[in-house]
Amino acid sequence: MSGQMGTVHGVGLGPGAPDLLSVRADRLVRGARHVAYFRKAGRPGQARRIAEGMLREDAVEIPMEYPVTTEIPVSDPRYNARLSAFYADCTGRLVALARSGEDIVVLCEGDPFFYGSFMHLHARLSGMVPVNVVPGITGMAGAWNATGQPITWGDDVLTVAMATLPEAELARRIRDTDALVVMKIGRNLPKLRRAVVAAGREDVAWLVEHAAMPGQRVTPLADAESVTPYFSILLIHGQGRRP
Amino acid sequence: MSGQMGTVHGVGLGPGAPDLLSVRADRLVRGARHVAYFRKAGRPGQARRIAEGMLREDAVEIPMEYPVTTEIPVSDPRYNARLSAFYADCTGRLVALARSGEDIVVLCEGDPFFYGSFMHLHARLSGMVPVNVVPGITGMAGAWNATGQPITWGDDVLTVAMATLPEAELARRIRDTDALVVMKIGRNLPKLRRAVVAAGREDVAWLVEHAAMPGQRVTPLADAESVTPYFSILLIHGQGRRP
Repeated sequence: MSGQMGTVHGVGLGPGAPDLLSVRADRLVRGARHVAYFRKAGRPGQARRIAEGMLREDAVEIPMEYPVTTEIPVSDPRYNARLSAFYADCTGRLVALARSGEDIVVLCEGDPFFYGSFMHLHARLSGMVPVNVVPGITGMAGAWNATGQPITWGDDVLTVAMATLPEAELARRIRDTDALVVMKIGRNLPKLRRAVVAAGREDVAWLVEHAAMPGQRVTPLADAESVTPYFSILLIHGQGRRP
Repeated sequence: MSGQMGTVHGVGLGPGAPDLLSVRADRLVRGARHVAYFRKAGRPGQARRIAEGMLREDAVEIPMEYPVTTEIPVSDPRYNARLSAFYADCTGRLVALARSGEDIVVLCEGDPFFYGSFMHLHARLSGMVPVNVVPGITGMAGAWNATGQPITWGDDVLTVAMATLPEAELARRIRDTDALVVMKIGRNLPKLRRAVVAAGREDVAWLVEHAAMPGQRVTPLADAESVTPYFSILLIHGQGRRP
């Protein structure tokens, strides 16, 4: 209608520490009048927690609460249908705000284009309003930094897989790689552990919880509890050529 | 001898843009009195180029020039021997400086623990002087950001491989993954292209040159020149579940 359209910025916040935002992301977050983020109902949300203490006093917050997370199995068609309606609804809110001339910063943990929820908004926003994506340090980089050891050397192959995959497929992937990252662990930890054991690599696997955050913990997989936060990351370091 | 030992900071600078350093990295680089970085003889060096304009006026620069890069094949034992002596020499210089009480910032493109040269110093410095590593946005995150499309969705498997691998092994890896990143391309581009074609995925492969830098270029692999910079990255985007 009147004036210029606002931009939706998908901003990667990095793995957790507030000074691991990029300079570009830091400026956008601190300057934002409208700040949106995903969270589970009743929870503060990982992205919002990283940005704690960084928002303008007059910032208007737009929490976007997932309608389902684990109550309906992913294989159930209702899961996709509900999430799809949810993302469409969020998109509608952001488009209306951007069309009224306001910029919006969407807080994204890690990197927005790497297994992120923002991608589902990005796909819907593209072509409707200007969108800008700021890359971030991934959660997995925070995790291998926490172990104090490089993840890959020389010609190492790195495989990144989700713990939501079937057990046999996980075991096959773990056997067939030099370095490994597994994410989306949470309640899948017992299955993941069986897959790592089947691949014969339990003695070199590490579980990293709360990387780059207070409470950061690095545990040999063999010593890990059977339940771990959703944001935990499993690592196997590569052993490639090192002159 | 006298006073406290200095710390060697391995600082990830991210993919190329100066405002994609983390806030933590930015502070360390701008405050550093001693700044070390790798480069090829006679070249400015990728890491040093990213930090252009950020160093203190009185910063002392310590260029560490690779003795060999491509003149000797990697398979030749002399390659490893020469590089090993080089890293030992660099380590000696940094240890002497740190023991005299000075902090040193080592500039690292991307993330220091992800296929980085700094890892070879880190392995040698550990236990001798205090070492601190600051993670960074990887070059590959800069590359997929440049394409404007997410790299992975849902349960996608991501494989990261080096173009230095044998052609058949590359083809097998490219066939057996959802999303793909290939680095260390340079003169390996013709071989890599044959492997992508053999895997039947040439029509969905992208070549990203100079990601997040002036001259950034995103090209369908089919249209790429036969020679490309060493820092080019090949991408195939995952096509996983998207509600």
